[in-house]
Amino acid sequence: MMAAHGISTAFDLAGWSGQHLDLVEQALGQWVGRDAPAGLGEAMRYAVLDGGKRLRPLLVLAAYEAVQSGADGAAREAAPCAGMDQAALRAGMDQAALRAGMDQAALRAACAVELIHAYSLVHDDMPCMDNDVLRRGKPTVHVQFGEAQALLAGDALQAFAFELLTPDDERVAPAVQAALCRQLARAAGSAGMAGGQAIDLASVGLALTQDQLRQMHRLKTGALLQASVMMGAACGASGAAAHKALADYGAALGLAFQVVDDILDVVADSATLGKTAGKDAASDKPTYVSLLGLAPAQAHAQELLAQAQAALAASGLADTRALAALADMVVNRSY
Amino acid sequence: MMAAHGISTAFDLAGWSGQHLDLVEQALGQWVGRDAPAGLGEAMRYAVLDGGKRLRPLLVLAAYEAVQSGADGAAREAAPCAGMDQAALRAGMDQAALRAGMDQAALRAACAVELIHAYSLVHDDMPCMDNDVLRRGKPTVHVQFGEAQALLAGDALQAFAFELLTPDDERVAPAVQAALCRQLARAAGSAGMAGGQAIDLASVGLALTQDQLRQMHRLKTGALLQASVMMGAACGASGAAAHKALADYGAALGLAFQVVDDILDVVADSATLGKTAGKDAASDKPTYVSLLGLAPAQAHAQELLAQAQAALAASGLADTRALAALADMVVNRSY
Repeated sequence: MMAAHGISTAFDLAGWSGQHLDLVEQALGQWVGRDAPAGLGEAMRYAVLDGGKRLRPLLVLAAYEAVQSGADGAAREAAPCAGMDQAALRAGMDQAALRAGMDQAALRAACAVELIHAYSLVHDDMPCMDNDVLRRGKPTVHVQFGEAQALLAGDALQAFAFELLTPDDERVAPAVQAALCRQLARAAGSAGMAGGQAIDLASVGLALTQDQLRQMHRLKTGALLQASVMMGAACGASGAAAHKALADYGAALGLAFQVVDDILDVVADSATLGKTAGKDAASDKPTYVSLLGLAPAQAHAQELLAQAQAALAASGLADTRALAALADMVVNRSY
Repeated sequence: MMAAHGISTAFDLAGWSGQHLDLVEQALGQWVGRDAPAGLGEAMRYAVLDGGKRLRPLLVLAAYEAVQSGADGAAREAAPCAGMDQAALRAGMDQAALRAGMDQAALRAACAVELIHAYSLVHDDMPCMDNDVLRRGKPTVHVQFGEAQALLAGDALQAFAFELLTPDDERVAPAVQAALCRQLARAAGSAGMAGGQAIDLASVGLALTQDQLRQMHRLKTGALLQASVMMGAACGASGAAAHKALADYGAALGLAFQVVDDILDVVADSATLGKTAGKDAASDKPTYVSLLGLAPAQAHAQELLAQAQAALAASGLADTRALAALADMVVNRSY
């Protein structure tokens, strides 16, 4: 099958996602909160399992498969990640790890970024932040388990992300472990997600410029989405050109994600979103819609999608279909 | 100078600590919150700088120097960490790093464990947890900066700990970076500090057995203290016997620290402690004093000190004086 840059209809995203999500869900279910005492594990699992689009893990795995597909014209018949033995995975990660080899790094990276995302939602929803009671159609963690347990569960999920990236054996090469921790820590911290949230807090009621809004979202949402792409790439081998192209793809996709989030906050209802709609306007937060207007924001999202697809075309990688389809899904989603 | 296991009077702890604390304070001051936007950096620095006993960083550096001192009879003249160029450190970490070589790993590990400790205090003090307004004689972070900023500052400090451990160059070997992240993540997470806090939350008003109390503290406080010792050791080279002995030392010291904390909560006043005294009894938390009584708790602390010193004697390491003196200080401190 030929690589089809930017033509998502040539690629069965639903099938690809379903197959890969099975791996991610099984791994998360097996790993998260297993040995956590005193109800902490229950809160951690509630925060992570059985919910969410899992966009970040899919980006990790899609980027990993893209770099493993090699340079144009040298595509492998089957992407290695698709070869993970699901029966072995169900029977225990040790067996699966032995069989899957380097895929263990990509699967761990996929789960780790999702843990960081999940912890950020738990803390974001708390009364001192967004004070939200509904998430993915369920009561938020602090509503279900109390504020103290929500705080601890978020803290423990962040630590567990780094624990997942550093297995105590040679299934993942130490240099890859270190690189993944480096990328994730930077994307999650004060120059990434947490920093973006601080800007967000400080921006309520202010009139931001588009540059300031972009900077906020580049940190708050974009850094972890871009890191997902780059962590997937770090689990394989890619040249400098592909590396640069994937970074561009991740940056455009990360920003597009937020623009579309702002649009959906206005045009969708709570039932569709699985969270409270209209929150941004109600809390007087600056958004792309409030800054640009609805139609220009929608046009901007399409521009960013085109940038992401152009970056993939320039990557020189043989098979970027999953990445292309994910970008298309991000921009054209309805929830 | 001969090694003097367990005889803290033979060792100038104040001089040793002062020299090493200078390095730690300079490094923290240079690294923490530097590029954090929107007031986040200020909150992070407030939480970390200019306060605290820095026990954990000192344990990292003492353990590092102990393993670098080699086996008994092969002690080096000067411990490598003492050779860090302070002028270079002031001039910029890059120069210091170049000159200090492998010491960079130990210094980063020392700062990283302190960041985890500092973040845990910020979150612990929040209204939904201990609701404490005084810490190290200053208003707590949420009192000073608001709850939302305190939550984010804690989150960002945890991420930054892992960022510090994973510099993007060869100053710290990738395998050491990975090992340090692994140890820190486990000590901080649900099978360590966060797990212990969850047990603590769930234990209010309950009658715990001594085993249950020990398990709670082994996780809540002991895991990070023990990890400090083991991370210091991981920055150097130690044999299996020394490794085991240092783990035993760290476990005994970690538990002793908490027993003494429980004692001080009863016998000291708030001005001396720099935090609110008598909180445990007021909040009906189980402690070693409530379980054993004051005098038996004090005797238990001395037993644990003897265990820690015995472990050092069994380590086969040439110079464990700093570790011995730190254990003595932990047990015989008055605040």
